[in-house]
Amino acid sequence: MAAEISSDLLARFAAIVGAKYAISDINDQQPYLKEWRDRYHGRTPLVLLPGSVEEVSAILKLADETGTSIVPQGGNTGLVGGQVPHATGNELLVSLKRLDKVRAADPDSNTLDVEAGVTLQRVQEAADGVGRFFPLSLPSEGSCTIGGNIGTNAGGTGVIAYGNTRDLILGLEVVLPGGRIWHGMRHLRKDNTGYDLRNLFIGAEGTLGIVTAAVVKIFPKPRSVGTAFIGVDSPADALNLLHEARANGGGTVTAFELMPRLGIDFVVRHVSDARDPIAEKYPWYVLLEVSTQSEEGVGDALEGMLMAAYEKGYAGDAVIASSLEQAADFWRLREQLSETQKFEGGSIKHDVSVPIRLVPAFLDKAIAAVEAFIPGCRPLPFGHLGDGNIHFNVSQPVGGDKKEFLAKWEATNEVVHAIVAEFHGSISAEHGIGQAKRALLPGVKDPVEMEMMRAIKATLDPKGIMNPGKVL
Amino acid sequence: MAAEISSDLLARFAAIVGAKYAISDINDQQPYLKEWRDRYHGRTPLVLLPGSVEEVSAILKLADETGTSIVPQGGNTGLVGGQVPHATGNELLVSLKRLDKVRAADPDSNTLDVEAGVTLQRVQEAADGVGRFFPLSLPSEGSCTIGGNIGTNAGGTGVIAYGNTRDLILGLEVVLPGGRIWHGMRHLRKDNTGYDLRNLFIGAEGTLGIVTAAVVKIFPKPRSVGTAFIGVDSPADALNLLHEARANGGGTVTAFELMPRLGIDFVVRHVSDARDPIAEKYPWYVLLEVSTQSEEGVGDALEGMLMAAYEKGYAGDAVIASSLEQAADFWRLREQLSETQKFEGGSIKHDVSVPIRLVPAFLDKAIAAVEAFIPGCRPLPFGHLGDGNIHFNVSQPVGGDKKEFLAKWEATNEVVHAIVAEFHGSISAEHGIGQAKRALLPGVKDPVEMEMMRAIKATLDPKGIMNPGKVL
Repeated sequence: MAAEISSDLLARFAAIVGAKYAISDINDQQPYLKEWRDRYHGRTPLVLLPGSVEEVSAILKLADETGTSIVPQGGNTGLVGGQVPHATGNELLVSLKRLDKVRAADPDSNTLDVEAGVTLQRVQEAADGVGRFFPLSLPSEGSCTIGGNIGTNAGGTGVIAYGNTRDLILGLEVVLPGGRIWHGMRHLRKDNTGYDLRNLFIGAEGTLGIVTAAVVKIFPKPRSVGTAFIGVDSPADALNLLHEARANGGGTVTAFELMPRLGIDFVVRHVSDARDPIAEKYPWYVLLEVSTQSEEGVGDALEGMLMAAYEKGYAGDAVIASSLEQAADFWRLREQLSETQKFEGGSIKHDVSVPIRLVPAFLDKAIAAVEAFIPGCRPLPFGHLGDGNIHFNVSQPVGGDKKEFLAKWEATNEVVHAIVAEFHGSISAEHGIGQAKRALLPGVKDPVEMEMMRAIKATLDPKGIMNPGKVL
Repeated sequence: MAAEISSDLLARFAAIVGAKYAISDINDQQPYLKEWRDRYHGRTPLVLLPGSVEEVSAILKLADETGTSIVPQGGNTGLVGGQVPHATGNELLVSLKRLDKVRAADPDSNTLDVEAGVTLQRVQEAADGVGRFFPLSLPSEGSCTIGGNIGTNAGGTGVIAYGNTRDLILGLEVVLPGGRIWHGMRHLRKDNTGYDLRNLFIGAEGTLGIVTAAVVKIFPKPRSVGTAFIGVDSPADALNLLHEARANGGGTVTAFELMPRLGIDFVVRHVSDARDPIAEKYPWYVLLEVSTQSEEGVGDALEGMLMAAYEKGYAGDAVIASSLEQAADFWRLREQLSETQKFEGGSIKHDVSVPIRLVPAFLDKAIAAVEAFIPGCRPLPFGHLGDGNIHFNVSQPVGGDKKEFLAKWEATNEVVHAIVAEFHGSISAEHGIGQAKRALLPGVKDPVEMEMMRAIKATLDPKGIMNPGKVL
């Protein structure tokens, strides 16, 4: 890696995008360098905002010729520092924000062509505009971009029914290291002509090239959606409820979110208009969403299923939303879970997954382990039970010292990740590796797999200038 | 590639699996060398039947040390010669048939662990045995293996709802060139820890390594399935019907197959117990399947949707199966379409896809083109309209010379594939490349993509001994 980038070279990069779109002022750079959790602090001589695929190509060509490192960025909402340059100051940041066109919409083929810088919310709106539905949904959807979603293979609450971002992509346009453009904007549901390169770039966090556009799948809108908030005694009961809902819920289970009582306490305490949907308190809650194309809707079936689950003893009190507003209230409880933790002091976070069947045993063991490791700490695991994906967060002891608590971040990670390994799980279910978990990767991956990853990186990015020090 | 494999070396390979499972007798080799269409004729000094992953590993280690080429094979049902060695006689065939264990079934996590040699039908049965459903379905399911399905990313009729084989795989165990084993049998719905290597091996047709086992997704069984046989005037009407069925069919569209009148004529003529489900004759027919988890089933909604489509003018007469037997009769018409073509003389075949919206225009143009190219020929395009995937087959003119007709195979391919290219389609939607389409690949692929594919092949199989001369 070069020590410092000469001002002459910086001028050549700036000339590609034009002075207006080459940001060197440190204050103007802040929106690109500062991420919302304020955990990663990077530095760059230049933020480049290319306005076309050709400009991205010219940037990567010049970067290749001069050995200049490039950090691609979408909406700067990533949680593992993948989108933030290192503090060395010798990496250029390339924001894809100006590539923000919805190029085409084809409701007959159920596809949208979108550029990398289109926000997730605009992708959803573009689908809606042609009477269709784009199922990827994240709390950050107003600012995260589809390019970032693709780079990180974003997950979210719809995965249980529609899969990860990976499963929503038909084609890609990618600028490769060196500047060549792969025109892979295919609109085909079936295409068995050679190796699947598309999935290599999805989730590679910008380390193999820059995704500039994609063909995404869109779907018929559900005719009817039923949303229920249900008290349960344990994650094991929640799992039984999931199977019952899948078999008899009157449609497709499109969300199944597990939340502990402590999380609801936090939200009710810190969000002014939030309230408990159920009078009686339960140790755990499930937010269940069932969608259907049937004209009758899910109403009766959903209610019947919840009654049956109650009688069988694995669901407690439940409320089915009687309006869109009430459904939105349920969802707000879930969505505020992350945000409100900061009002309760430090929070040590994990984003893990295990096979679905093992979630209850994993939770038992991991909760006991962190409670033993930091007496008085408050485990707050929540998330996508239907995908086996738990955001295993731990809030600091009441009245404890925040700094002292957060100093145990890595050590706590070790405790939790050891249990994840025992359950053959993943230490990054949906957030990616970035900078945050790069050092952990060799410890959790099959060495043969690590070697293959390194070989592919060396093949596609032989100079190692694409988002260096991320993932690998 | 070595000229001939010495008998000493052959003995070393045979010793790995034991004499009983190293077949050199040309007659005993026939089940592995002869494929059902009799288009590819290979030769090998030895068919090896390893009984464990370790034996597969030992074979690839010795192959690597000695530069010996290896052709992996599943159920020998492939249509493009990918599983057949070349006639040179210097490639060893490795059949995965003896790796035939269902290692584990986990209905709570909705996963099965299966070895490569388990037939597709046995995978379906294993899912059924734990109250679940494996949606991949092919006419050859009694003999094709899940390993072959993975190697070729098999499609079939369920793709419209469940995706290709690629979409059904969570984890893989792969023996790499050189003999190292990648233990990638993950059971996770979400795992964002690095590059997606799994999809690189799926659909690679054994050119990057040998898949020895997989974790596959299984699904809740549909509670109710409605099957209808519908006459339509045109593919454009069929497409309208598809959208109507998706919106109002009372469930998920799990199959949508288009068939021309000529195909039904062939089946009715040549299959003794086959009969027309509809009295009136239509130029095209649709086989529609709708599945639901709702207790009421699809019955009323499906009928109402067909009535509405009739009134709107894009569906003709229709029959909804009133029994499982009747549904099976409808399916038999569809499944016999390939088989019965051989009773009508030569048939030139294509397996193409285009964006769904463009199927009607593609069919118009391609039918006109082949009729102009071979006067009197009988186009018989059929297949998975919901995936944009058409088996564009062309039967010879009545009373014409079969040999003379089949001599135009490549030239006819050129005519059809040129139109496919114009519509940004694929020349191999689900059958793969194998030997059959290898020469065509550089002509239809983006050169940047070809280069990436070659680079990845060279990285993972530097000696070029894994299924050489296939795909690339």
